[in-house]
Amino acid sequence: MSIAARIGKKSLLDKVRHVEEVVPYFKNNMSLGWSGFTGVGGPKIVPTALADFVEKQKLNQDGSEEMRFNLITGASTDLPIESRWADLKMIKRRTPHQVGKKISAAINRGEILFFDKHLSMTPQDMLYGYYTKSQSQPNIDVALIEATEIDENGHVILGPSVGAVPEMVAYADKIIIELNTALPSFKGVHDINMPLTPPNRIPYPVTQVHERFGTVGVPIPEDKILAIIESTQRDTVPDNAPSDVVSETIAGHLIDFFKHEVKQGRLPQNLHPLQSGIGNVANAIVGGLANSEFEDLQVWTEVFQDSFLDFLENGKLHYASSTSVRLTPKGFERFFKNFDQFKQKLILRSQQVSNHPELIRRLGCIAMNTPVEVDMYAHANSTCVNGSRMLNGLGGSGDFLRNAKLSVMHTPSSRPTKTDKTGISCIVPFATHIDHTEHDLDVVVTEQGLADLRGLAPRERSRAIIKNCAHPDYKDQLFAYLELAEKQCAGRAMHEPHSLANAFKMHLNAEANGTMKLKAW
Amino acid sequence: MSIAARIGKKSLLDKVRHVEEVVPYFKNNMSLGWSGFTGVGGPKIVPTALADFVEKQKLNQDGSEEMRFNLITGASTDLPIESRWADLKMIKRRTPHQVGKKISAAINRGEILFFDKHLSMTPQDMLYGYYTKSQSQPNIDVALIEATEIDENGHVILGPSVGAVPEMVAYADKIIIELNTALPSFKGVHDINMPLTPPNRIPYPVTQVHERFGTVGVPIPEDKILAIIESTQRDTVPDNAPSDVVSETIAGHLIDFFKHEVKQGRLPQNLHPLQSGIGNVANAIVGGLANSEFEDLQVWTEVFQDSFLDFLENGKLHYASSTSVRLTPKGFERFFKNFDQFKQKLILRSQQVSNHPELIRRLGCIAMNTPVEVDMYAHANSTCVNGSRMLNGLGGSGDFLRNAKLSVMHTPSSRPTKTDKTGISCIVPFATHIDHTEHDLDVVVTEQGLADLRGLAPRERSRAIIKNCAHPDYKDQLFAYLELAEKQCAGRAMHEPHSLANAFKMHLNAEANGTMKLKAW
Repeated sequence: MSIAARIGKKSLLDKVRHVEEVVPYFKNNMSLGWSGFTGVGGPKIVPTALADFVEKQKLNQDGSEEMRFNLITGASTDLPIESRWADLKMIKRRTPHQVGKKISAAINRGEILFFDKHLSMTPQDMLYGYYTKSQSQPNIDVALIEATEIDENGHVILGPSVGAVPEMVAYADKIIIELNTALPSFKGVHDINMPLTPPNRIPYPVTQVHERFGTVGVPIPEDKILAIIESTQRDTVPDNAPSDVVSETIAGHLIDFFKHEVKQGRLPQNLHPLQSGIGNVANAIVGGLANSEFEDLQVWTEVFQDSFLDFLENGKLHYASSTSVRLTPKGFERFFKNFDQFKQKLILRSQQVSNHPELIRRLGCIAMNTPVEVDMYAHANSTCVNGSRMLNGLGGSGDFLRNAKLSVMHTPSSRPTKTDKTGISCIVPFATHIDHTEHDLDVVVTEQGLADLRGLAPRERSRAIIKNCAHPDYKDQLFAYLELAEKQCAGRAMHEPHSLANAFKMHLNAEANGTMKLKAW
Repeated sequence: MSIAARIGKKSLLDKVRHVEEVVPYFKNNMSLGWSGFTGVGGPKIVPTALADFVEKQKLNQDGSEEMRFNLITGASTDLPIESRWADLKMIKRRTPHQVGKKISAAINRGEILFFDKHLSMTPQDMLYGYYTKSQSQPNIDVALIEATEIDENGHVILGPSVGAVPEMVAYADKIIIELNTALPSFKGVHDINMPLTPPNRIPYPVTQVHERFGTVGVPIPEDKILAIIESTQRDTVPDNAPSDVVSETIAGHLIDFFKHEVKQGRLPQNLHPLQSGIGNVANAIVGGLANSEFEDLQVWTEVFQDSFLDFLENGKLHYASSTSVRLTPKGFERFFKNFDQFKQKLILRSQQVSNHPELIRRLGCIAMNTPVEVDMYAHANSTCVNGSRMLNGLGGSGDFLRNAKLSVMHTPSSRPTKTDKTGISCIVPFATHIDHTEHDLDVVVTEQGLADLRGLAPRERSRAIIKNCAHPDYKDQLFAYLELAEKQCAGRAMHEPHSLANAFKMHLNAEANGTMKLKAW
């Protein structure tokens, strides 16, 4: 299929270019916006051409800065492409989320200045000018947007993600569209809302998952469009980690809990709209729910993954709203096979909408995420190992966990080190980085069991978490910390007792000796 | 004025009782809801009678539990009354916020099980049954509600606060109204919205501070009303700490920043709706704004204090929305003198509305709060000294700081200890308790200066905070920690470098030696 067949507004045919023609437009230190969210729907052709250029010209070598960019995305982008940019030192600044070992390694070497922020907020903060305030012309120089069609009004029909595109096109000086003819048109899947800023904002009228209130495509002023380039490159989503005994046991505890809550009248029969992260625990939960007695379920999330396809196929899913469809090649095959049917049950919205506190709280979502570690008072680390080493970033976890009706952290109780198969306890005395506070979590669940923390004071929470969730190898040790802390705080600081001198001792021991198991406190 | 003149619905006159008649209704271990927010609008007559009863009967002595309660409020209640309850060990559990040395002392001795939570969420979580789930009959046994009138429809006109009253009367089994005839009727000040729960919630239609969408009074089913009791007792709000050089210097930095933001086009001429906490820094800021060039200002906050009266009187305030009018006796005198006029510029809403993420984000509020400490990466502690000793609780700080367009933490750079007048640095390497994360703060300001953190990566933030905000006595020491941390993390964990072995060393030194000044790292 030719690119012309995908462009309804014929005046835009003049904008069609070869990728080589746009490469000279890019200058060192520009701010770029890339479409894409959770590795899908991002630009591929232009970034590859720029990487080829940098490689061929041997730029950015030996510490020189000849072609480095301030890169703002929806969330993570195509893994091989951004990894190559990291290798070629093309990323100077990066926000708000990234996935890929080479990217995080560059961040942790200190080469890339990364900051992460709630995904509902980055698009608005960008529009406020917060991320480009030090530039002489505070804007995004070029936005690279993948699309699957341009309609007769010139509205751009996006692909498998919306992310921050509405805000990017509003804020960008120039826009390059990568029109992907290897994908079918996603027309009718999106619900697009162009951003409003205070004091001109109005309510988001959605009261149920399936409601629409936007447009089908993204309106883009024609004079902003620098070029339209054909793409035939598909996204590269790696296979999902399969579920295992641990993740299935966690899922089992959680589904039992949901049944209990329905019985107690605190959840309706079909639960509330579900948010679920990425990973094998998330997959096990969704898989478990797909095989459970629950019916007519709804999904309100930021990422729609392979495991949700079971839901769609077996009819248990009433409706899903997301900002991306992040499927593996096999998943996309299943998805496109029934595309017309699935389109009736799915909306893709901008991340400002999918992750908006207003909507998550109104709908009463059930939020489920995996942390690096949780502490005994229910503070959670989602981002930085040992407080310092960045993994992927916060993502939407804060948007969902803060505002959901039921906020769940699920994690294996322990992880292996090279020398000890339970060398890391995921339940610790004090989280080395805190992204979610004790005020934000209702439930912690591991394969050991579930701790329902609602209404509990910190000292009650600590007992519930250690007793129900900690790995048996660490239970006594964690209770011993608690005893020590309570002894040191007795009579004067018993609200949330800590022994600050020992709070990170388990982490320090793991760094030195490959295990969090201590000889003594 | 007699109580009968304040009761429009005449059938309710039958419910008028003497306080002694209701005392026998209260049993050990009941869950009670008290109206009131920031020390005003709470019940006084019934709590005093219950305290008298416990005292006279010598209950709750030597560890016995004869008359202890699970106490849920809006925020803090009348200081002398709740202090007396704490002394008499009448509080078993307490949520979500408290003020008073005797109350926090009882919490920190471990006598009262306290938990704090975002004030926008406690009323809804109570309605969900989260706080009473272990009870055989999960509800509030009795709600004690102060009112200033009951209209002809039986709707209850509240007094100087709304707080969690709508949710409490919806969730309570029985209600006792304390009709306060020493206050004028507040009819017309409140905008009352009875709570909806998922999946039945609809948007809050407010798009500007002055908009109303509720009723004037609280509808209460007549059969729930156990008694109506006359009160003539006024609230006891202590004098505010006066502003001083430090707080005025902080205010000056912040007002200069606002002017800069207006010039850059990131804030409108009349700013955005302001939220401001309690304390002398907050007072200095509001005082500074009242004397500044800014006009037509708006306030969207949870507590309206004496300092705001200047705004009202000098015409600079366009409109204010709050959930309480927390005034000193002198402040109330000023307020009531122009009550009819001030009523035209003020709305009191429930805390679920005043603190709702939906509205704070939509309006683009400017949130300003004082922490215990802020760390060099911009995590803030609002609640627990040395991670363990509870002060007052989280309050609405998380609701506002997370969702505001501009989130500001203001604090003196240091505080005195008994032996060192700058013995405590309010800028620390690692906050000992984290209520607000690095993802939530835009600006940190002390009397030393202001750090604009928007768009900065952690290592940039650390430099900005230490350089601009730390006290000169601590600057070198904090930079030395940073250097040590970066050395230890070099090449592998340079996103947010920490030296976990030293992260709390300043706090431990202060506990041991009365100062955070170290001999060496």
